[in-house]
Amino acid sequence: MKAELISVGTELLLGHTVNTDAAYTARALSAIGIDVLHVCTVGDNPGRLEEALRTALGRSGLVVLTGGLGPTNDDLTKETAARVCGKRLVPHEESRRRIAEYFKNRECSQNQWKQADLPEGCHVFPNNHGTAPGCVFQAEGGQYVALLPGPPSELEPMVRDSLIPWLAGLSQGVIVSRMVRTFGIGEGSAAQRLADLMESANPTAAPYAKDCEMFVRVTAKGETEEAAQA
Amino acid sequence: MKAELISVGTELLLGHTVNTDAAYTARALSAIGIDVLHVCTVGDNPGRLEEALRTALGRSGLVVLTGGLGPTNDDLTKETAARVCGKRLVPHEESRRRIAEYFKNRECSQNQWKQADLPEGCHVFPNNHGTAPGCVFQAEGGQYVALLPGPPSELEPMVRDSLIPWLAGLSQGVIVSRMVRTFGIGEGSAAQRLADLMESANPTAAPYAKDCEMFVRVTAKGETEEAAQA
Repeated sequence: MKAELISVGTELLLGHTVNTDAAYTARALSAIGIDVLHVCTVGDNPGRLEEALRTALGRSGLVVLTGGLGPTNDDLTKETAARVCGKRLVPHEESRRRIAEYFKNRECSQNQWKQADLPEGCHVFPNNHGTAPGCVFQAEGGQYVALLPGPPSELEPMVRDSLIPWLAGLSQGVIVSRMVRTFGIGEGSAAQRLADLMESANPTAAPYAKDCEMFVRVTAKGETEEAAQA
Repeated sequence: MKAELISVGTELLLGHTVNTDAAYTARALSAIGIDVLHVCTVGDNPGRLEEALRTALGRSGLVVLTGGLGPTNDDLTKETAARVCGKRLVPHEESRRRIAEYFKNRECSQNQWKQADLPEGCHVFPNNHGTAPGCVFQAEGGQYVALLPGPPSELEPMVRDSLIPWLAGLSQGVIVSRMVRTFGIGEGSAAQRLADLMESANPTAAPYAKDCEMFVRVTAKGETEEAAQA
């Protein structure tokens, strides 16, 4: 399955926040055999988010949106995704109960409750580290659309504990990817020596340079982890 | 001017590398009044890069591509950008001289030299920290297209010392953006109290939550830094 990540948040476009969510999510998806082919970032702007989502639905079987699930008026990911995919938002009782619990000893502003409104028929991912639940649902064209909170402390456990187990059943095959560190050889020389592997379809090899060192990424696909390792 | 960043590299899509280049570049651009509205990441795949670049050229006055300028066969950013924009690649003597200098005491593989082939008529950004020069040129539709190396140790000085000074003359106005830390108030309550600022066009305010704290991002535009600060 081909996947696309859409990161939502003006703070990412201003460079105030480094997009670690995309790297974490991409790593987790590729570990269960889901290829991420596009990552895009848009601000808290429903028009541009809608455009990005429509593009993604046209080319990807799984679209993961991160960020913009919070209580404020500029948190528009869920509303936009529901509208584009023709889903109503309906209150989710368990999520309302969790929000009430979260705020039992502090002020709970009225706008908190919109976090418990979720696309009808979705599978809900509880948020054990914040107030905005995540979810996944199927769009009319059959694509899976997942909505996840932006703060890494909420996103990472939700990817690991909810999204990946849910997706694991859908995935075909496993990608195993390893970074091989090299010493005393440049990217250009490595490419010439690895030419056969670099042109093969499975496994693939790609050298690339980091500060003061050079890695070769070797990636293999198989039906099981053991087959890919082989 | 509206800008778009395209990050190129399969290592980003596998999550092996966190995309700090995009954050650094976005921060530098917004400081000189250039709005980044989209960031997208594609792998070392000329077809998907071409698609992303054509989309970007259709909606952005400045497209900054980072990564994929190295010596190997999977480094295709320059070749793809030149083809899409109808530019020939021509040898740049000063860049050839720099590559020869860089390798004077070590093996220089034949594929290193392709790094010195640059789009005809471009403005060259020398790379003082690696072998691949960057550059900027104007596409047929008038859009500016900048090509920058991917390793942060090469990208960051090139953005700071070459791209930004070159662009500064083109930019209209300055964006000043400040993060205001808050204490003891949630994102929802803050949004209600800041409602008037959140709906204003200039300045704008947006609250967002991080681990254990809440920030308000206040952004103002003006013709000069003093005007924006005011």
